[in-house]
Amino acid sequence: MGEILHAIQDKYPDDFAWCYGCGRLNGDGHHFRTGWDGDKTITYFKPGEEHKAIPGFVYGGVIASLIDCHGTGSCALALHRKNGYEPNEDEEVPRFVTASLHVDYLSPTPIGTLLKAVGTVEEIHPKKWKVAVEVFADEKLCATGQVIGVVMPSTFATKK
Amino acid sequence: MGEILHAIQDKYPDDFAWCYGCGRLNGDGHHFRTGWDGDKTITYFKPGEEHKAIPGFVYGGVIASLIDCHGTGSCALALHRKNGYEPNEDEEVPRFVTASLHVDYLSPTPIGTLLKAVGTVEEIHPKKWKVAVEVFADEKLCATGQVIGVVMPSTFATKK
Repeated sequence: MGEILHAIQDKYPDDFAWCYGCGRLNGDGHHFRTGWDGDKTITYFKPGEEHKAIPGFVYGGVIASLIDCHGTGSCALALHRKNGYEPNEDEEVPRFVTASLHVDYLSPTPIGTLLKAVGTVEEIHPKKWKVAVEVFADEKLCATGQVIGVVMPSTFATKK
Repeated sequence: MGEILHAIQDKYPDDFAWCYGCGRLNGDGHHFRTGWDGDKTITYFKPGEEHKAIPGFVYGGVIASLIDCHGTGSCALALHRKNGYEPNEDEEVPRFVTASLHVDYLSPTPIGTLLKAVGTVEEIHPKKWKVAVEVFADEKLCATGQVIGVVMPSTFATKK
């Protein structure tokens, strides 16, 4: 509980592993890690004490960040699986960018609790995927969201 | 240019000035500050080098955070003005929470550039306001968003 064994972000190429939300190489970031749980995607995150909105409650921008990276990670997991691969395999993974992000804040999210983002991924075009996200604090649903992810355009690629 | 003289966040009571996005008392946060420019609201922010998505471009979660706090700050400015006050006056200001947040990412946002969020506020109910937001990097429109803010419920109040 609370642990992702094989996260898609573990397999992003080094050049794409610097994201403040989910990049394993970003020393200042959140290090979100997203994996499969059956046909749902999961990201766990425990916000720090500094990530508050007001004392006792998590900042909405951090929840939006969790949903954002959980969304693009879920898109990558799903396209990778469609291509025949799982994130524990040594195979290059697709990388998505966010086209749009929506968050509905349903109830104040207590700080000091492990958050769990659960995603349901749907292909709406070979290069455009949609993820419906629910964010739970313990068992309580605190926020819902939707991410539209698109395969990262080649113009984003930096020199190798 | 790039400076808000009288920000609504400067007047939030100390108990409500800890937000990771816009709290002046949060030593780790972004310190977003939102003020009037005529009938539009403005927040400037220069992301740090760590706030990247991939090298060269700003992380979408930071843009979402900017839009979130710009939105709630804009709601507070607008209700305060409706009540007859400007943020340079020594008068208690209203405080909003985010009901929903939407962001459309239109083009990659270059890092190292001052971002400018511009808001247009509309009252949809005495306790529920809507803010349409545009985020510019220099003169380029990089993202648009919408925030629905509601007056903070009294249940959020901590002991004084």
